[in-house]
Amino acid sequence: MEKVNIKQKLDMISEYWKPHIVGELNGQEVKLSKFKGEFIWHHHKEEDELFLVLKGRMSMHLRDTIVDLEEGEFFIVPRGVEHKPVSEEEVHLMLFEPASTLNTGNVRDEKTLDHLKRI
Amino acid sequence: MEKVNIKQKLDMISEYWKPHIVGELNGQEVKLSKFKGEFIWHHHKEEDELFLVLKGRMSMHLRDTIVDLEEGEFFIVPRGVEHKPVSEEEVHLMLFEPASTLNTGNVRDEKTLDHLKRI
Repeated sequence: MEKVNIKQKLDMISEYWKPHIVGELNGQEVKLSKFKGEFIWHHHKEEDELFLVLKGRMSMHLRDTIVDLEEGEFFIVPRGVEHKPVSEEEVHLMLFEPASTLNTGNVRDEKTLDHLKRI
Repeated sequence: MEKVNIKQKLDMISEYWKPHIVGELNGQEVKLSKFKGEFIWHHHKEEDELFLVLKGRMSMHLRDTIVDLEEGEFFIVPRGVEHKPVSEEEVHLMLFEPASTLNTGNVRDEKTLDHLKRI
């Protein structure tokens, strides 16, 4: 039962594409991450996934459209929907998703993280 | 599948203590609300509740302590824990909690909202 200061936690994150867990509730996790560049196409079979832009901007590529997200905007990718996060510049994000969510979803490659750090 | 601009949604909220639903995922809801003044003591039997301060500041009163929250900070009230949000000045909040969560928890009074607006 401690409050979380988002900026303090973000300062502890140096690597891109490596979400860190900062809160847990109701079987869900709150994660913070920094993205830069292009991730891989993937989907989550059972999990809806929320991306909230805290700083910077990013584009969520979907198979039939691209959703541009600015600071203070969020987007929910429903389960089963293929997506690929892309950001030309560093973007800071809050994620909200079930604790079971694997970062690369149905894909397993060198970006896959089986264990996320709790900070 | 539409992105949500938090500021645009907050501009649609005029009443204090009246959370509005702005997103749904995995049986959970994302809500926005404006608080000012003092709420009532209550707890949620089955639901953990996240309060993220978007603007302003507030205090979460617990029975044995008070947690002061500034902009960019969040606090998770675990299920079963009595709490009372208090804010001297207007504060803007994002809430994450199960769709089943009643705003006044175990208490039913004039502040109880059985139906929240989706904006």
